[in-house]
Amino acid sequence: MYSVGVREHVMIAHSFRGELFGPAQRLHGATYVVDVEFRGERIDGNGVVVDIGRAGDALKHALSDLHYRNLDELPELAGKNTTTEFLARLVFDRIAARIAAGDLGPGSDGVVALKVTLHESHVAWAAYEAVLPR
Amino acid sequence: MYSVGVREHVMIAHSFRGELFGPAQRLHGATYVVDVEFRGERIDGNGVVVDIGRAGDALKHALSDLHYRNLDELPELAGKNTTTEFLARLVFDRIAARIAAGDLGPGSDGVVALKVTLHESHVAWAAYEAVLPR
Amino acid sequence: MYSVGVREHVMIAHSFRGELFGPAQRLHGATYVVDVEFRGERIDGNGVVVDIGRAGDALKHALSDLHYRNLDELPELAGKNTTTEFLARLVFDRIAARIAAGDLGPGSDGVVALKVTLHESHVAWAAYEAVLPR
Amino acid sequence: MYSVGVREHVMIAHSFRGELFGPAQRLHGATYVVDVEFRGERIDGNGVVVDIGRAGDALKHALSDLHYRNLDELPELAGKNTTTEFLARLVFDRIAARIAAGDLGPGSDGVVALKVTLHESHVAWAAYEAVLPR
Amino acid sequence: MYSVGVREHVMIAHSFRGELFGPAQRLHGATYVVDVEFRGERIDGNGVVVDIGRAGDALKHALSDLHYRNLDELPELAGKNTTTEFLARLVFDRIAARIAAGDLGPGSDGVVALKVTLHESHVAWAAYEAVLPR
Amino acid sequence: MYSVGVREHVMIAHSFRGELFGPAQRLHGATYVVDVEFRGERIDGNGVVVDIGRAGDALKHALSDLHYRNLDELPELAGKNTTTEFLARLVFDRIAARIAAGDLGPGSDGVVALKVTLHESHVAWAAYEAVLPR
Repeated sequence: MYSVGVREHVMIAHSFRGELFGPAQRLHGATYVVDVEFRGERIDGNGVVVDIGRAGDALKHALSDLHYRNLDELPELAGKNTTTEFLARLVFDRIAARIAAGDLGPGSDGVVALKVTLHESHVAWAAYEAVLPR
Repeated sequence: MYSVGVREHVMIAHSFRGELFGPAQRLHGATYVVDVEFRGERIDGNGVVVDIGRAGDALKHALSDLHYRNLDELPELAGKNTTTEFLARLVFDRIAARIAAGDLGPGSDGVVALKVTLHESHVAWAAYEAVLPR
Repeated sequence: MYSVGVREHVMIAHSFRGELFGPAQRLHGATYVVDVEFRGERIDGNGVVVDIGRAGDALKHALSDLHYRNLDELPELAGKNTTTEFLARLVFDRIAARIAAGDLGPGSDGVVALKVTLHESHVAWAAYEAVLPR
Repeated sequence: MYSVGVREHVMIAHSFRGELFGPAQRLHGATYVVDVEFRGERIDGNGVVVDIGRAGDALKHALSDLHYRNLDELPELAGKNTTTEFLARLVFDRIAARIAAGDLGPGSDGVVALKVTLHESHVAWAAYEAVLPR
Repeated sequence: MYSVGVREHVMIAHSFRGELFGPAQRLHGATYVVDVEFRGERIDGNGVVVDIGRAGDALKHALSDLHYRNLDELPELAGKNTTTEFLARLVFDRIAARIAAGDLGPGSDGVVALKVTLHESHVAWAAYEAVLPR
Repeated sequence: MYSVGVREHVMIAHSFRGELFGPAQRLHGATYVVDVEFRGERIDGNGVVVDIGRAGDALKHALSDLHYRNLDELPELAGKNTTTEFLARLVFDRIAARIAAGDLGPGSDGVVALKVTLHESHVAWAAYEAVLPR
């Protein structure tokens, strides 16, 4: 299995609901350094899993309406705890939708799985990975 | 599959037996930067795989009787080569036992697998990962 | 010159005032990975610049009332743009005050300068460094 | 599953053919920081997956005829786009061949899979991983 | 003293002349991860040393005609050994010229020094730092 | 000022004397990732501060009799607390002596200062830097 990875970051505010979160129930924030890996069984005639330029653009696009935002105020996320796990899944779903729509180019039909990892500090991170529906 | 990771470190002395180890047969030591990933198929009502506070505590606890120790003198490890691989498994077993005992909280029954990685330098590391017995 | 460094992190929300900041004028947030270096011309009889345990405690203490907070709501910071530079200076001043108060122990009178660096992402950081007043 | 990893680097020149690559069609170059993970279900009597010394040597050997080279001029790579994905596979195949030849020592017959990751910058990487043929 | 840093990267081919360089006399290449720190004694009314957006643009601009190039073919660099040290100075001079030209905005007249660091691998780097002429 | 840096590591056992050190009074160990920076005002005709090959060799040599050792048993270090600060100075002195002896080659007389940094974990480090005597 091949994989190709790209890194971006996003800076957001949010708060959590639930005693589990202790002081993180207060409005606070995070820088998430976001890694996305695109996986495929083969490389195409160009020698790539996916056009890394389009891959990077897809990641930037997936983060664009979150960057410099208070997630508590985004209608799409209303009533959600935007934990690192939750956001990893959100970015996964957004990029998966772009792949399904063909936005990553003709060679990207060989992308069979994604892994999205969000690093919230030097000592904590979360990820979501899955095979793409076909 | 979701995963959540936390990082700690431990500083130990030890020696190895066997010609394979060359100069590492002498008493020496290591800082291990230890990463643990908790994996689960779903996130709970709070939006998490596991309470990250308890996850971090579990890791600290798993390392506590090793920290600032000469592993050659610990009865539990007598006669063992405490290689990076061996120690990755030891930390895995200790955290797995805590999960089995319910010490990571009610939501942690969704944790189905663990990966423990020990970085021994900027150029070498070892890991142990497995599905948890149920 | 000797130096000793310790690392912690803090997760905050804030917003900036001024056209310069573009979208960062909105309420957003950051994880700051904070490095503090304590500098001295000599090491003491124990062989250290400063008790690293107390150094780490001083850094944690300097960050404690910022962690999981919206900085826009803290009276001490009212009317301030809490930029990375500004926060580096704030942490510097707080630790310098603790050193002046003798909170880092008897050997810490050899600490002559500090550097505080805040990493706001994998591609941006700011720092403040200065000689301590004597 | 256990794994053991080692890191090296290689500095090469090359160019790509295909409009997909835009400016990277020009002769340029890269530092690849190369990680190889050796995976096995068990550790041997010494407590290791593989002799880490031999593992490191195998990686150095796999990179030796690429280091400080223009890949466009190597007969073995003629007509190939030496993308990061392609090179990850090349290094994989070379190390797999050495394992098959018994060059990693008697314990290495427990190595069942490899993962090779090439980091081409702080924001991009590619990997190839597979089970070894037996 | 305050400082603000930004990171970019550039991928180039080149060769060195001189026996000192051994195999690096051959055409090869490098990824340089480039850090630039802008230093000033004070922060301005916005709370910044320099507009970090313009700082990042200045760095990108300083690298733009080097990216995806064979440095041996650039007239500006003819007859030069484009060592990591040399390139650190080149980037320094280019950014210093932009500051002198006022391209970093009105607040940037407080920038009194720069440091440029090029990381050529995980185990080697070079830097150039100096006070800016006024 | 130019600087060139190289990285190596060393794995040692040791213990500390003094209540200050708490549990680190016990025999334990550390991996030190060691960075050395060679500084000079100019680059030579080859375009370098120092021959990076010889620089790396000097660092390896400075660490060679410490690697895989219990520092408590080395006669040279008898009665010393081999703290991270102390070891940074030890490595500094050893490399400075080699420069003074001309072992870094003819161009190395332009090296006017050194900085040695030892990273003992992902959250702690120490350094020693000074101008070289001439």
